[in-house]
Amino acid sequence: LFDGRQSATAAAVQRGCGRLLAQMNYAALTELTLATGRRADIIALGPKGEIIIIEIKSSLTDYLTDGKWEDYLDFCDRFFFAVPPDFPREVIPLDVGLIIADKYDAEILREGEHDVQLPAARRKALTLQYARVAARRVFRILDVE
Amino acid sequence: LFDGRQSATAAAVQRGCGRLLAQMNYAALTELTLATGRRADIIALGPKGEIIIIEIKSSLTDYLTDGKWEDYLDFCDRFFFAVPPDFPREVIPLDVGLIIADKYDAEILREGEHDVQLPAARRKALTLQYARVAARRVFRILDVE
Repeated sequence: LFDGRQSATAAAVQRGCGRLLAQMNYAALTELTLATGRRADIIALGPKGEIIIIEIKSSLTDYLTDGKWEDYLDFCDRFFFAVPPDFPREVIPLDVGLIIADKYDAEILREGEHDVQLPAARRKALTLQYARVAARRVFRILDVE
Repeated sequence: LFDGRQSATAAAVQRGCGRLLAQMNYAALTELTLATGRRADIIALGPKGEIIIIEIKSSLTDYLTDGKWEDYLDFCDRFFFAVPPDFPREVIPLDVGLIIADKYDAEILREGEHDVQLPAARRKALTLQYARVAARRVFRILDVE
């Protein structure tokens, strides 16, 4: 998270999305590796266990070099790309969820049309993985002393 | 966590328990408020979703002024008291799980005899709460800059 490996733009988008998700009463976790080996930029858990995945695209190049975003659909109830305000958003298919974000805020421009509810077993497994990874990060951060 | 509100002894026991749980492949979270309003000192999630609660007792006074530990049994699969090496451990009923811990390590002395498996609905709710609280702590810690 904000660790210098990613661009400042991506970090700003990530931060704005975090704020938006907090307002939505979703708890956000960054960089969770899914069962497929792909890493979700942001995965967020709603109050009833709803799962949102957000894939950050800081630039057109970043977007064009990406693998198949369709892979994420199997691991969430709602999927969004999140891009900075100056991103050429017309390149993103109209049937995919889209968030515009800067460092301070973010806004959902549209919902995705491919989104379907997760099967219960996968939701359970994902929630457990999310929980264990998040707790380990807290422990790791606080155990450095 | 290690925030000065608790004694150095309690912090040491907590740290040792964290290490033990990591060895057991459990992810530990501290200070989770349960549905009853009571706060679990440590709650840990196993690889299959198993839940352990550990209540830290740093001194005899701390132990004697505690409320009903039986309340925790409804929120975990296994419950333990964790105490420092010099704690008068004979005061703790023999049918309750017990861990001896110092700053560097911890050991399970015995399992509790009252432990039963959690109902699925409660496990699900607890796992979700654990996940959201843990992720929010990561976010809060890293978002201070």
